[in-house]
Amino acid sequence: MAVKIGIIGGSGYTGVELMRILALHPEAELVAITSRQHKGKSVTQIFPSLHCFEELVFMEPDLEAIAQKADLIFTAVPHQTAMEVVPFFLERGRKVIDLSADFRIRSQLVYEKWYQAHSAPEYLEKAVYGLPEVYRDEIRQADLVANPGCYPTSSILPLVPLLRSGLIKPAPIIIDSKSGTSGAGRSASVATLFCEVNEGFKAYKVGSHRHTPEIEQELSAAYGKELKITFTPHLVPMNRGILSTIYADTEPDVTTETIIYRLREFYQGSPFVRIHPEGVFPNVCHVRGTNYCDMGALVTEGGRLVMVSVIDNLTKGASGQAVQNMNLMFGLDETLGLMAPALYP
Amino acid sequence: MAVKIGIIGGSGYTGVELMRILALHPEAELVAITSRQHKGKSVTQIFPSLHCFEELVFMEPDLEAIAQKADLIFTAVPHQTAMEVVPFFLERGRKVIDLSADFRIRSQLVYEKWYQAHSAPEYLEKAVYGLPEVYRDEIRQADLVANPGCYPTSSILPLVPLLRSGLIKPAPIIIDSKSGTSGAGRSASVATLFCEVNEGFKAYKVGSHRHTPEIEQELSAAYGKELKITFTPHLVPMNRGILSTIYADTEPDVTTETIIYRLREFYQGSPFVRIHPEGVFPNVCHVRGTNYCDMGALVTEGGRLVMVSVIDNLTKGASGQAVQNMNLMFGLDETLGLMAPALYP
Amino acid sequence: MAVKIGIIGGSGYTGVELMRILALHPEAELVAITSRQHKGKSVTQIFPSLHCFEELVFMEPDLEAIAQKADLIFTAVPHQTAMEVVPFFLERGRKVIDLSADFRIRSQLVYEKWYQAHSAPEYLEKAVYGLPEVYRDEIRQADLVANPGCYPTSSILPLVPLLRSGLIKPAPIIIDSKSGTSGAGRSASVATLFCEVNEGFKAYKVGSHRHTPEIEQELSAAYGKELKITFTPHLVPMNRGILSTIYADTEPDVTTETIIYRLREFYQGSPFVRIHPEGVFPNVCHVRGTNYCDMGALVTEGGRLVMVSVIDNLTKGASGQAVQNMNLMFGLDETLGLMAPALYP
Amino acid sequence: MAVKIGIIGGSGYTGVELMRILALHPEAELVAITSRQHKGKSVTQIFPSLHCFEELVFMEPDLEAIAQKADLIFTAVPHQTAMEVVPFFLERGRKVIDLSADFRIRSQLVYEKWYQAHSAPEYLEKAVYGLPEVYRDEIRQADLVANPGCYPTSSILPLVPLLRSGLIKPAPIIIDSKSGTSGAGRSASVATLFCEVNEGFKAYKVGSHRHTPEIEQELSAAYGKELKITFTPHLVPMNRGILSTIYADTEPDVTTETIIYRLREFYQGSPFVRIHPEGVFPNVCHVRGTNYCDMGALVTEGGRLVMVSVIDNLTKGASGQAVQNMNLMFGLDETLGLMAPALYP
Repeated sequence: MAVKIGIIGGSGYTGVELMRILALHPEAELVAITSRQHKGKSVTQIFPSLHCFEELVFMEPDLEAIAQKADLIFTAVPHQTAMEVVPFFLERGRKVIDLSADFRIRSQLVYEKWYQAHSAPEYLEKAVYGLPEVYRDEIRQADLVANPGCYPTSSILPLVPLLRSGLIKPAPIIIDSKSGTSGAGRSASVATLFCEVNEGFKAYKVGSHRHTPEIEQELSAAYGKELKITFTPHLVPMNRGILSTIYADTEPDVTTETIIYRLREFYQGSPFVRIHPEGVFPNVCHVRGTNYCDMGALVTEGGRLVMVSVIDNLTKGASGQAVQNMNLMFGLDETLGLMAPALYP
Repeated sequence: MAVKIGIIGGSGYTGVELMRILALHPEAELVAITSRQHKGKSVTQIFPSLHCFEELVFMEPDLEAIAQKADLIFTAVPHQTAMEVVPFFLERGRKVIDLSADFRIRSQLVYEKWYQAHSAPEYLEKAVYGLPEVYRDEIRQADLVANPGCYPTSSILPLVPLLRSGLIKPAPIIIDSKSGTSGAGRSASVATLFCEVNEGFKAYKVGSHRHTPEIEQELSAAYGKELKITFTPHLVPMNRGILSTIYADTEPDVTTETIIYRLREFYQGSPFVRIHPEGVFPNVCHVRGTNYCDMGALVTEGGRLVMVSVIDNLTKGASGQAVQNMNLMFGLDETLGLMAPALYP
Repeated sequence: MAVKIGIIGGSGYTGVELMRILALHPEAELVAITSRQHKGKSVTQIFPSLHCFEELVFMEPDLEAIAQKADLIFTAVPHQTAMEVVPFFLERGRKVIDLSADFRIRSQLVYEKWYQAHSAPEYLEKAVYGLPEVYRDEIRQADLVANPGCYPTSSILPLVPLLRSGLIKPAPIIIDSKSGTSGAGRSASVATLFCEVNEGFKAYKVGSHRHTPEIEQELSAAYGKELKITFTPHLVPMNRGILSTIYADTEPDVTTETIIYRLREFYQGSPFVRIHPEGVFPNVCHVRGTNYCDMGALVTEGGRLVMVSVIDNLTKGASGQAVQNMNLMFGLDETLGLMAPALYP
Repeated sequence: MAVKIGIIGGSGYTGVELMRILALHPEAELVAITSRQHKGKSVTQIFPSLHCFEELVFMEPDLEAIAQKADLIFTAVPHQTAMEVVPFFLERGRKVIDLSADFRIRSQLVYEKWYQAHSAPEYLEKAVYGLPEVYRDEIRQADLVANPGCYPTSSILPLVPLLRSGLIKPAPIIIDSKSGTSGAGRSASVATLFCEVNEGFKAYKVGSHRHTPEIEQELSAAYGKELKITFTPHLVPMNRGILSTIYADTEPDVTTETIIYRLREFYQGSPFVRIHPEGVFPNVCHVRGTNYCDMGALVTEGGRLVMVSVIDNLTKGASGQAVQNMNLMFGLDETLGLMAPALYP
């Protein structure tokens, strides 16, 4: 029997991407979706790309009604809003996958330093960080999954195996990330107007992006000790995709071959991670619309590791990963509904 | 039992798109694909977007071997090359869907005026023009389907119902089409370099594009008499999509409502054609990667009809339509493997 | 002595483009620029592209102060706002070039039908329509120039010579225009977000765009009798540029050669209009950032004229043309400050 | 009297950009330009963006004829071709600015390791590296200027002042660069087709790009000792622009303020370098078509310096810098012909 799904917050790109994936999922039934802005209108009317949801109508966020209908709730609302609705569903025995940042940071102190006061800190410990390649078993048992950020997904996957096995040093770790513009969301703003982004390229929030503590939390866990990173996000004139170029120092005698071998070993049972052979580096265009994370690696003569990882920020970086988590939470095949090839060109 | 499929010419955008769709088709098995350029290499190695074809290896065009393995052959080679291989398969009782222009024009004279000498003219009459919304029954019985061109698909679908029912006059008919750059193919050329196309916009082959006789053939058939059109294609700095803006004169008392009613009536049983309500016009971004053709229409005060249609040039304009034809030829549901929502944004 | 210039409304793309051009103009001195939003900040701080205006500070629209400093005022504010400030300057003997639509339509009735009530109708008759290639002498004498719209500039220039000389029929005239996104301005809006425009293409305001009466006014004047057009604007995923494809019926025996000859004759003394030879059609990328209007023409076998014209919507379609008008109004060489080649690629 | 200029190799983007700049230069006269491919055709016919060169005709590379006409020769041909023609002009007392890599590397050994055998090694020592902000005086006296590469320009300018003054450590220095596609040139190739680049993002030549030794040479000179860098170039779906994100470790007690102060001090007399205030980082769109290099800097809590620099790869990264060098070599104002604001948007 299909999983009955409610989505809170269906008018952003993350919500739309979630619907796009669920539309073809053989074991999912979307029973309710909310949007204050579009309430009363059919999903297809607002988003003609979603041709199959003509009958589905955006409703106001009536939590009680949704809790009654749905087994699983995806919260695709901004942080701070998420923490206000998530406990409601958990208290009624529903499972929740939260796509905001509200339950990703285990430490209340760290969360409140980077974001704002947390109104449901009791759930911080219970939430499982929804990166299946690292926390597969925990996700299977979880009631609340904190779906990772897009930059963190692209940064943590390449580094966890290497930090765990001590192939690289914990400092310096430099993550230079480049993201498509859909990461900035679907709200009106001058900074993300077509003419401001097209034919432009910039770094932003240098040294201060909120994904930093999330990445540090997971890399520290992999290393076994607290570590710090340098993280610089950039805005790319394209719709989708994140490419992260990662720099670290290897331990003595670690070669490109060692690195690739280790990554392949670690991700053997992870169908969505592909490690390219030596000399081959990935392009975001080859994972567009998919749940894949592709990687390439090189150790330079001087012993510096250069890794490049790519994901689709809306899919593996958000809604695809959320569905992967759903599959695990409901005992389904991890890849169900997620195997469509990339849309290229 | 799945249809066994061979593809001749798998290294262009059309071939890649065909594989992308077939990858998820529940009743299709891709058993052979040819590419002189890439022979011996796995499909996934050359096109990492196609993650599921790691085991499939590009082979030389050994027609005999393919005829033995495949029930259906898609020819995704340039015109003139197609006419050389298509008869081989037909003579061996295989079905063929030809994505080139070689069998689209029924009149040898017209074909040879716009293209070059035809080496297999005996098949021109036997070929069925593969526009399912117009020739569904014929396609079901066909051995050879001539898959329509991208511009013709976007132009014929809006006009056929109106010409058949006499709602518009046969002249003037002006078709102003705008295509994404994938329509120009995947061969190296200065004119389609990124820097030449990006931030540019141009008309090309004004008054002389080879899709003109194809459109005229089908519109004349719908009207019942020979008619001529004015057709201007343009190149848009985007990867996929065709938008055609079509101008015609209505017969007296024909309103927007009449037009929309007629279109909806005609396309009632055609799941891939969507007629927008009055005042709403389509955007190519909402059909990206899908087999849909969306349309909007307006009759101006002066009685001029303005119609706008959109398709994805690689999907409904080529490979998606080819799979739709395959479904019909093999008694499958017309929409099988073709219902994924558009990738937006 | 340089012309002293004030700009009302300096925070939109039109204002920025005006400053870009004036920065290099040898006979212009920008003495004041207003912006409520940015007041007190230097132009270079807000627009780092304008490196030479570090000392120039955005001020509030203090009309009195500006009238005292400036000989010429460019109003680069939205329509309806323009009509509120223009009379102030005219009454004080200043010259005004208005980049809004407020003084382009000679008939108050027509203006009010398409826009809203007009608060300064007495100036409608006095304003000169600022298309130098058509009204050069009138502009030289004008106190108030109504700078043409971008679509009208690209549409009127190709058609005026042909209508005046009776080479084409007055109906049908179909203008299918495609514009870069800067035409939509620099205000926050979902519809012009990068991800909504990029990889998309749409028609908009089909049959109802406000540039229609402006084009009809000027074409009717050229023809000598009232005529109507069909006008469809489209949005292109590029920053700058308009390409208009224009369809009309020729009078008997009019050939491509006739058309090209006539256009060249008409524009002989107009340095910014270039007529391409037969078989050559223009690309917007070749006029980017310039004041040029390039055209190509073809008469089809059936006697239909297809013309293609390109301009940069911000330059010849707005601020460049405004400076061309300024040059004429102040007795300067028409091309002064406007001869930089296009930025290609 | 104007400098008489010949350009060898005028059909690439670098040659076109050179002509664009020279068109408005008050002290330059372009007397000859070569192109085997386009010989006999006017520049404007091939490149309609260059409206002012209708009379200038591409000629074959007749070196003798050019040496007789020109005072200064720009060689805008690929490396290896450049070394074959440069000595010819120098021997005849002409000045040369070479835009290829052939004379940038002082050590023949290093050159031959990264490129190929050098046929004119005697000129390696005589050539001056044409980065005016570093070698202004030497350029004034030079006969042969080796115009820097685009990535090196964007990398060396931010780092030289800091290495010279010992504010940062010589290792690690990581340069993560992102370039627009015009850097790949104007030759037909599948990899730079619109559909391959648009909506894509990739790193390329990881650990092996030929600009590495050029950057290392100049940074080592600034530091006073041999140093090594890690350099990763990326391809951005835009026409123009390079943004380099640079990571280095600061010496104790070096703050963001220190860095910015030092940079401003160093570049005080360099009109094309702009140092942004703390917290502000540059965007390539603000230097489009200009000779500017804009920078921003931040020292993180952990003492890591993050710098971001932007240039237009065709202007400051190639042809603009070449004209800046010409100005110095001929005793002209360094900024002559180079002060046009950026084309934004």
